[in-house]
Amino acid sequence: MTKLKWGMIGGGEGSQIGPAHRLGAQADGLFEFAAGALDHRPDVGRDYAMRLGIAADRAYGDWQEMLAGERDRDDRIDLVTVATPNATHFEITKSFLEAGFNVLCEKPMTMTVDEGEEIVRIAEKSGKICAVNYCYSAYPMVRQARAMVENGELGQVRLVVTNFSHGHHGDATDADNPRVRWRYDPAMAGISGQFADCGIHALHMASFICQDDVTQLSADFASTISSRVLEDDAMVNFRMSQGTVGRLWTSSVAIGRQHGFDIQVFGETGGLRWASEQPNQLIYTPVGGRTQIIEKGEGGLHDDAMRLSRVAIAHPEGFPLAVANIYCDLADAISGLARPALPNAVDGLRSMAAVSAAVASAKQSGAWLDARPPMFR
Amino acid sequence: MTKLKWGMIGGGEGSQIGPAHRLGAQADGLFEFAAGALDHRPDVGRDYAMRLGIAADRAYGDWQEMLAGERDRDDRIDLVTVATPNATHFEITKSFLEAGFNVLCEKPMTMTVDEGEEIVRIAEKSGKICAVNYCYSAYPMVRQARAMVENGELGQVRLVVTNFSHGHHGDATDADNPRVRWRYDPAMAGISGQFADCGIHALHMASFICQDDVTQLSADFASTISSRVLEDDAMVNFRMSQGTVGRLWTSSVAIGRQHGFDIQVFGETGGLRWASEQPNQLIYTPVGGRTQIIEKGEGGLHDDAMRLSRVAIAHPEGFPLAVANIYCDLADAISGLARPALPNAVDGLRSMAAVSAAVASAKQSGAWLDARPPMFR
Amino acid sequence: MTKLKWGMIGGGEGSQIGPAHRLGAQADGLFEFAAGALDHRPDVGRDYAMRLGIAADRAYGDWQEMLAGERDRDDRIDLVTVATPNATHFEITKSFLEAGFNVLCEKPMTMTVDEGEEIVRIAEKSGKICAVNYCYSAYPMVRQARAMVENGELGQVRLVVTNFSHGHHGDATDADNPRVRWRYDPAMAGISGQFADCGIHALHMASFICQDDVTQLSADFASTISSRVLEDDAMVNFRMSQGTVGRLWTSSVAIGRQHGFDIQVFGETGGLRWASEQPNQLIYTPVGGRTQIIEKGEGGLHDDAMRLSRVAIAHPEGFPLAVANIYCDLADAISGLARPALPNAVDGLRSMAAVSAAVASAKQSGAWLDARPPMFR
Amino acid sequence: MTKLKWGMIGGGEGSQIGPAHRLGAQADGLFEFAAGALDHRPDVGRDYAMRLGIAADRAYGDWQEMLAGERDRDDRIDLVTVATPNATHFEITKSFLEAGFNVLCEKPMTMTVDEGEEIVRIAEKSGKICAVNYCYSAYPMVRQARAMVENGELGQVRLVVTNFSHGHHGDATDADNPRVRWRYDPAMAGISGQFADCGIHALHMASFICQDDVTQLSADFASTISSRVLEDDAMVNFRMSQGTVGRLWTSSVAIGRQHGFDIQVFGETGGLRWASEQPNQLIYTPVGGRTQIIEKGEGGLHDDAMRLSRVAIAHPEGFPLAVANIYCDLADAISGLARPALPNAVDGLRSMAAVSAAVASAKQSGAWLDARPPMFR
Repeated sequence: MTKLKWGMIGGGEGSQIGPAHRLGAQADGLFEFAAGALDHRPDVGRDYAMRLGIAADRAYGDWQEMLAGERDRDDRIDLVTVATPNATHFEITKSFLEAGFNVLCEKPMTMTVDEGEEIVRIAEKSGKICAVNYCYSAYPMVRQARAMVENGELGQVRLVVTNFSHGHHGDATDADNPRVRWRYDPAMAGISGQFADCGIHALHMASFICQDDVTQLSADFASTISSRVLEDDAMVNFRMSQGTVGRLWTSSVAIGRQHGFDIQVFGETGGLRWASEQPNQLIYTPVGGRTQIIEKGEGGLHDDAMRLSRVAIAHPEGFPLAVANIYCDLADAISGLARPALPNAVDGLRSMAAVSAAVASAKQSGAWLDARPPMFR
Repeated sequence: MTKLKWGMIGGGEGSQIGPAHRLGAQADGLFEFAAGALDHRPDVGRDYAMRLGIAADRAYGDWQEMLAGERDRDDRIDLVTVATPNATHFEITKSFLEAGFNVLCEKPMTMTVDEGEEIVRIAEKSGKICAVNYCYSAYPMVRQARAMVENGELGQVRLVVTNFSHGHHGDATDADNPRVRWRYDPAMAGISGQFADCGIHALHMASFICQDDVTQLSADFASTISSRVLEDDAMVNFRMSQGTVGRLWTSSVAIGRQHGFDIQVFGETGGLRWASEQPNQLIYTPVGGRTQIIEKGEGGLHDDAMRLSRVAIAHPEGFPLAVANIYCDLADAISGLARPALPNAVDGLRSMAAVSAAVASAKQSGAWLDARPPMFR
Repeated sequence: MTKLKWGMIGGGEGSQIGPAHRLGAQADGLFEFAAGALDHRPDVGRDYAMRLGIAADRAYGDWQEMLAGERDRDDRIDLVTVATPNATHFEITKSFLEAGFNVLCEKPMTMTVDEGEEIVRIAEKSGKICAVNYCYSAYPMVRQARAMVENGELGQVRLVVTNFSHGHHGDATDADNPRVRWRYDPAMAGISGQFADCGIHALHMASFICQDDVTQLSADFASTISSRVLEDDAMVNFRMSQGTVGRLWTSSVAIGRQHGFDIQVFGETGGLRWASEQPNQLIYTPVGGRTQIIEKGEGGLHDDAMRLSRVAIAHPEGFPLAVANIYCDLADAISGLARPALPNAVDGLRSMAAVSAAVASAKQSGAWLDARPPMFR
Repeated sequence: MTKLKWGMIGGGEGSQIGPAHRLGAQADGLFEFAAGALDHRPDVGRDYAMRLGIAADRAYGDWQEMLAGERDRDDRIDLVTVATPNATHFEITKSFLEAGFNVLCEKPMTMTVDEGEEIVRIAEKSGKICAVNYCYSAYPMVRQARAMVENGELGQVRLVVTNFSHGHHGDATDADNPRVRWRYDPAMAGISGQFADCGIHALHMASFICQDDVTQLSADFASTISSRVLEDDAMVNFRMSQGTVGRLWTSSVAIGRQHGFDIQVFGETGGLRWASEQPNQLIYTPVGGRTQIIEKGEGGLHDDAMRLSRVAIAHPEGFPLAVANIYCDLADAISGLARPALPNAVDGLRSMAAVSAAVASAKQSGAWLDARPPMFR
């Protein structure tokens, strides 16, 4: 078992996302951390990369240097993770795909729908993997939920209700804190605040579990802290292509909610509930029957739920290992084993189309708008 | 302590609501069950009333007979509860108020906004109590929540999120069951299904805790079981007069949710959560602080929360005693002690106005509409 | 349906227990509060009784006067509740039984095993009901648990684990508070503190659900606040006649536990868990299967669980209605309908025998001792 | 940052423990997997090691070969993990310590108290690290609990109550399954079944959080499935050197409990609760105050709780990362940074002394026995 070679752009010292990706890539011994351009300050990035054990000639000062350095090596990296500020995702992802690298891009994949469509086209043309880090979809019990829906265990899905709400930006006296403020400033965050930051995880999850696409939506946005231009609370009603009704609430001012990401799926013959703070259980109720607790690691789970769990029943596995599961799927996909559940550029594009539609709908008093990317209409 | 005299219309043998009111009225020894017209079949109702201990001359065949019989007695009833089918609430409530009786009406108080306004005017003119049985508002910890908001413990309220969702009508194969079907049939249920049945409890709760009125709303209705004319799932976004943002989801097809009525209130300096399935706790988080569990019966609660609890801390008190709390407040109000938290005809009217606005909004693709009764615009 | 006539001794103004019994007796309209000797101060008691609506000639100054007054009436009370200080339970219960009254005695029924045996003999001889208020046993879902065990749904029971632990006496600076102190003072509380106060509820529950008797036990007592003579924390290991292993922990210094009474029953083919703070659910796991939530009010429950529930599924019913359920069973029993689940004098006696054995065992370093009353050895 | 070199003995293909250690050692990039003797079948072990990326000359056939191969290398491994069957821990650990290696031994460290004392002496003499994998102690919120006790936030600890109970061996029809049976067979498991397997984790946890040693204990063992020689259920009462009272229940027949390891600590001024199925929260109640939820990742936690958490508040971290935390502490300790919380040979020895005392106590009807190793009496 030779390790695959992995590189990262961004994720420098002091970031949260860098360690999460390093752990995700290395936890299962699948990837070797071989190259990096980790900081926007070239010297700082090179130094940090070397301290993390990367060879000096692969400790790059910026992504352009890394692209140039890696593209002609025989032992070029098998995968590059893009963990830079949001506005740079498009250009970097595009460049590496065009140069024939597999890419894992942090969300949001792009800032606009047009850019998203361009990435989809490039990825397709290149034949390379372009994954997007919707890592919650890689929790074992989320995979179980998806398999149960696919397997017809809920019947036709009627209704999906999902929330991603926290209260960590609820303190108005802290609203000028730069770590908070940028998210509500269009100059830095783009056209949407909380919906683009957290809401799209929930929207992706709805599509992921149901294996269906959002077609239309209506949004209500609010800036509950008045100094904010972009929304810190949003409600989005939507419909999926098979008629499923969707409800999505996302907030950053829900004081007392820590990581309030959950999803409920209701079908003809049963209902499911999963919550990110207790990710190792799936709550299932057959119509007319009793609510049951499905435990990660129990006998008889669907394949992906089994495969992506490492320790025995009721030994909890948390967020970092969900990220690691994305890397497990990537390693398989790089090796030619199909991993259709891996979120890809089309997912990244659909998120941008939904953000764009939600922003427009909110401005039009909740008008129902087409949420699909133009290329899929 | 002489007991007050109490009568009931409807709530006959085999109903759920009759025993709940009898228990509520009698649990604390405040009311004596003195008169009744309990069934739409006169003889059946008289017989049942006598079996429940009511004197033969006050066991009436219908409400008209009861009104005639009681109005001229010296020992006339102090309070009448109207627990008949929804479509009759208006006429009965109106008639008893006009004859100078105090009334507790089941919800919905009326079928139309016009009727609601008429009741408000009659109640005001009569000087009598016209209460509406929004009994969830009488749980001790709901009163605690209201008092905390009033006391400024959350600062200005920014956001209210409430759900009343269950899955008991989620079985399409049972959709023709008459006990289920009527709720989705306009001929019997009026203009709205699930929102009028459960949603208005949640909407009342939002206003009750915040002491603020809903001014505008936008609704998305769905009939997820296609044979239904009226909605079995609804999302309502709203605004209150002080700018508070509201989100309300109600469903009867949420398989696995049993009695999913909960509310979250988020203000400038803290957040609260209360859920009807664990009604004896209130979850409170001060901004920047740790989540705390406030227990019914702990020291230092606000007055109403203390007064309306009967047994020591952590001894649970459930739904029937919330109904009994409504009767406690009624007994006090009848005795001349102000109980401003008691839901009244204005609350009943506001619910009808909200239902009317929601139905119209849903038909107009979620247009934002005025949710206030005309008389309060 | 004529109401039965009910009297109470003790439970005067300001007590917690008086209102609980009044609510319990009257909530379902089964009993009329006809007589009382409510306070150790005769005038205070008479006055309070009359304020509660009792006729002047049945508002008694003390229990002797009440016994004399009631015994010769044609309309004598059908049931008397003994809610006086523990040390007086024996004498009052004995006297009323001997005079041919049905009695509901608060726990502990007596202060000694000998007294307990005497009550059992008198009750048997009199043919009257002598119930003891182990009211937790009347929660619907506890009855469901008992029926499931009886029905073989768990197979042979191997193990019972029960706790009754709270932290309300955990503040050493409050240890001299008279409302707390007496419980740890042998002069007032007898031979045992926390075990006799709360532990015997848990021990009764184990026997109640398993329908089996405790035969042997070994105890470890601790006075974790050193000023206390009697134990404030106890662990009791026990065995039942069919070989079931028992574990019982009770504490009053478990700061953070409010009403920590729960029980787990593990058999050959399944396990059950019930907790008094969420009394409307029973958690059930079949061996090799998934954990299920059994809801009060769901279809297909065993008879007693159905009968003793008043409102629909997931509408919580709490402690006061568990007390009311004891009165429901008493009303039936008085009317000649067998209610074998109603806790009786033998249960009261077995508790005293267990307390006596536990105290002795704790003094003998946990020696295993016979826990049965002499008359049942 | 050069990676430390790490080797493992045992943990071959198909084991659960091997992947857990590999993930633990590599997740944070601290150790390089440099050597291994992974299987009792030499060829199988060598092959597997090479497939895991170990160089051929360090892929050993057995531990003796590995010891011989590593001891004279300049680049010898910095740490060896012993993950072999229990009966071999002593000999391997002893041999590597004597040869000057740092060791992480799986629990139980030894099969007897004598062996445990020998390891303690050898470890001390060698000056090398001998850690034992009580990995639950490395959860961030367990470290927080320990720091709170140390910091006096609970006052003097009065009482510790801990459980480690599951139901995975509760199926009598599966009792002959070799994966289950050996645990209850003295020939394979030694003198104790469930207590030695799970109970000692709980006992270690009590000592770990309180920083106090168990001095005396009294045990009640049961084999609830009659074919078992060793206990499958045990209750152990104990005392610690400062007078703290302890209660420990452990079971493998508690059907419905999955991973029921929890601990409650009650002191003069507060109580704490931690449960392994929700390891990212610590529940804290100050005396006389409200219960609070302390979240992993919140501001103001004690140092170890901060240091050993990788992702933001409410992003759960589970069991594998608790193991990784043991390796984090080991890396620091190897580098000369004191990590006093790392469980060591003395902890391993104390566990064996407690097992020995519990077995003897259970045979002597619960006699209270000295639980300390002879060398610490």
